[in-house]
Amino acid sequence: MDHYEAALKLHKENKGKLSVVSKVKMDTMEELAIAYTPGVAQPCKEIAKDDNLVYEYTTKGNMIAVVSDGSAVLGLGNIGPKAAIPVMEGKAILFKRFADIDAVPICLDTQDTEEIIRVVKALAPSFGGINLEDISAPRCFTIEQRLREELNIPVFHDDQHGTAIVVCAGVINALRLVNKSWNDCKIVINGAGSAGISICRLLLQMGLKHIVMVDRQGILCEGEQWMNPAQVEMAKITNREMLKGNLTDAMKGRDVFIGVSAPNVVSSEMVATMAKDAAVFAMANPVPEIMPDEAKKGGARIVATGRSDFPNQLNNVLVFPGIFKGALQARADDITVEMKLAAARSLAQLITDEKLKEDYIIPNVFDERVVNVVAQAVMEASHK
Amino acid sequence: MDHYEAALKLHKENKGKLSVVSKVKMDTMEELAIAYTPGVAQPCKEIAKDDNLVYEYTTKGNMIAVVSDGSAVLGLGNIGPKAAIPVMEGKAILFKRFADIDAVPICLDTQDTEEIIRVVKALAPSFGGINLEDISAPRCFTIEQRLREELNIPVFHDDQHGTAIVVCAGVINALRLVNKSWNDCKIVINGAGSAGISICRLLLQMGLKHIVMVDRQGILCEGEQWMNPAQVEMAKITNREMLKGNLTDAMKGRDVFIGVSAPNVVSSEMVATMAKDAAVFAMANPVPEIMPDEAKKGGARIVATGRSDFPNQLNNVLVFPGIFKGALQARADDITVEMKLAAARSLAQLITDEKLKEDYIIPNVFDERVVNVVAQAVMEASHK
Repeated sequence: MDHYEAALKLHKENKGKLSVVSKVKMDTMEELAIAYTPGVAQPCKEIAKDDNLVYEYTTKGNMIAVVSDGSAVLGLGNIGPKAAIPVMEGKAILFKRFADIDAVPICLDTQDTEEIIRVVKALAPSFGGINLEDISAPRCFTIEQRLREELNIPVFHDDQHGTAIVVCAGVINALRLVNKSWNDCKIVINGAGSAGISICRLLLQMGLKHIVMVDRQGILCEGEQWMNPAQVEMAKITNREMLKGNLTDAMKGRDVFIGVSAPNVVSSEMVATMAKDAAVFAMANPVPEIMPDEAKKGGARIVATGRSDFPNQLNNVLVFPGIFKGALQARADDITVEMKLAAARSLAQLITDEKLKEDYIIPNVFDERVVNVVAQAVMEASHK
Repeated sequence: MDHYEAALKLHKENKGKLSVVSKVKMDTMEELAIAYTPGVAQPCKEIAKDDNLVYEYTTKGNMIAVVSDGSAVLGLGNIGPKAAIPVMEGKAILFKRFADIDAVPICLDTQDTEEIIRVVKALAPSFGGINLEDISAPRCFTIEQRLREELNIPVFHDDQHGTAIVVCAGVINALRLVNKSWNDCKIVINGAGSAGISICRLLLQMGLKHIVMVDRQGILCEGEQWMNPAQVEMAKITNREMLKGNLTDAMKGRDVFIGVSAPNVVSSEMVATMAKDAAVFAMANPVPEIMPDEAKKGGARIVATGRSDFPNQLNNVLVFPGIFKGALQARADDITVEMKLAAARSLAQLITDEKLKEDYIIPNVFDERVVNVVAQAVMEASHK
C-alpha cells in the first residue's frame, strides 16, 4: 500500500485526525458544578474585571487557529475550504505533536481579502495566535500584514516564514561547513512567489548581500517589464549587479541555489557552473528542481530538499511549532524579524561543529531538542 | 472550599478546560507522510471532487462551533467575548462528556448582528453544526433564524431551545403523573424573554392551548402598550381569554407554573391559588422563583428547578448533546420543530410508569441512556 492509499484509509477510518477533549473530570454533580455552572461564573467574573486573566483561566494562551481559505493548498491549487480541511487538521496535530499546542482548523467560506481579515479579527478572542496557511499570493501578503497590525496576538503565515526560517538555518550551516564568508556569498533563488520572496527578505535581513531572484520569465532586474508589483519591489533590493537572463545565467558562480519552483528545472550541467563547494537546496515537492544524485554529479557539495527520503530535509515542521511555542510563552503580540532570525540561528546552532557534515546541515524533524531550543530563542528575542 | 473557589483553582491549574489532540500517531517519517504531506493530498483531492466526502475524511461531521459574543453570559450580562470563554469551554467539554462530540469555543469580538451572521457563515466549512450560546435577545432570534436559512448545517440556540425542550419533557411527565388532559391544562410562564418565549412556542407546538405569559410589567395581552415586538407576537397566540393583571392574577387556577425569571418572585400563597396537583418549575438560577419547600407548603404536588441539589433538575445538558448527536448522525441540515418535540417526548418517556414519581419526572443528568435515546429520536424525526 502506498502513501496515498494509506492516507485515504487513515483519514476514513478515523473520520479526520482531530479530537477535542476535556482536561478536567466531569463525572459527578460536584465536578459539573465546578467546571460548569454555577462555579464557572467565577473565572468569567475575574476575566471581566481584568482582561489579562483570560490567559490564566482559559485555553486561549495555548490555542492557535489554523486559518485557510483553501486557495493554494499544497501543490493542488484552489481546491476550496472543505477540501483544505485534511491539511489544516494535519497542521493542527503537528502543533500538538511537536509543541503541545492546541490548534483548530478554521477553513473559511470566502476568498475575499477584506472579508478574511474581518472574520479572523472577529474570532481572535478565543485564540492565542493565528497561523495562516495555504492562502494564495498576493492576498496572503495583505492579509498577514493587516492582521499583524490590527490584532494584538501573533499572526504568522507559515508558507512564507516557516520555509524562509528553515532555509536560512540551512544557509547558515552550509556556509559554516565550507567556511565561506557571508559578505561574499552569492545566492540564486529560483521561484519569485510568496515563498521565494519571503526567503529572500529573511536572507537580506540576516545580512546576505549578493542575491538574485529568478522567475519563469527570467532574472528579476530593475526595469524588466514582466514583473508583478511584489517582484518589482524585490528587484530594487536584489541583483545590484543588474544581471539579466535566465536561470542558467543566474546560476553561474553562485555559492547557493535555493529552489522553490518546479520539478527538474535544474540540470547537473547548470550545477557545474556554480562556485566551488556549492550548496543546492532543491525544495520543489514532491519532485525537486534536481535530484540529489544529479546535483552531486554536477559538483554540489551540499544538497538539501523538502523530502524525508533524502538527507537534509528542509521541513518547516522544524520551525512553526517552536515559533508559536516561544511566542505564546512570551505572550508576544507579534512575531518579529528578530524572532525569526533567532529561530533560524538556534536551529542551525543545534548542530555542533563535530556533527556538522555535508549530509547533516539541518536537524531531523523528530529531533526532540528542536522545539524547545527554537522556542527559547524566540522568547528571548521577543523580550529584547 | 466552596464551588467558586474550587472553580477558580480548577481553571487556573489547568489553564482552561480544553485540549485538542490527535486521533492518529505521528512518531515516524512514515506516519508523518500519511497524516500530513504527501499523503494528505489524497483526501484533499477526493473532497475537491465530491464535497460530501468531507464527512468521510475529516472531523467536520463531529465538530461543533460553540459561538458566543459574550452579550448575555449566564446571569452575568454583557461581559464580552473573553470573559465568556470559560462558559464556552465548559459547553464544549459537556459536548464531549455526554455525546462524544468535538466542540470548539468561538467567542466573537463583535456584537453586531450582521457581522456575527457573516462571520459564522464564513467559518462554517470546518463545522458540522453551530451551537449559539449566551447571545442577548432580540439579536439571538435574528441571528439564529438567518443562519438556519442561510447555512446547510444545523444551527441551534441552546439558551432558547435546550431549555424549551427539557421544560416540555417536564410538562409531559408532570401531566402524565397526575393524569391531567393536555387540552384543558392551564399554564403560566413567568419571564417573557428568549427562554420564556421559546418554551411557550414549543408548548404550543406540542398542542397545549391555555398559556399565559407574564413579564415584569404584567400579563402579556393583546393591546397592552408596554410589550416589545416579540411579546406582541406572543400575545397574539397566548392568553385567548384576554386576561389582564400581574403574576398573582395569572397564577390563579393554573396547572403548571414555569419560571424563567428572577429569585423569590413567587410566594407559597400564590402557589396555593393554583389548581389541584399543580406543578411548579422554578428555574431561576441559582436562586429559584420559589424554594421547593415553600412551593410544597403552598400545595404544589410537583416541584422542579434548575439546581442539582434538589430533585427534578431541568438541565439542558439532558438535551443539547443528544440533539446534536442525532442531527450530526442524520447529517440533518436543520433542527426542526419535529426534532425538538421528538427529543422532549423521548426524554419524558425514558421514565417508565412505575418509576414516575413526584420527585422523579426528569432523568438525572448522568443517566447514561439519555443521550442515545434523544439522539435516536432526533435522527428518526429528521428522516421524516
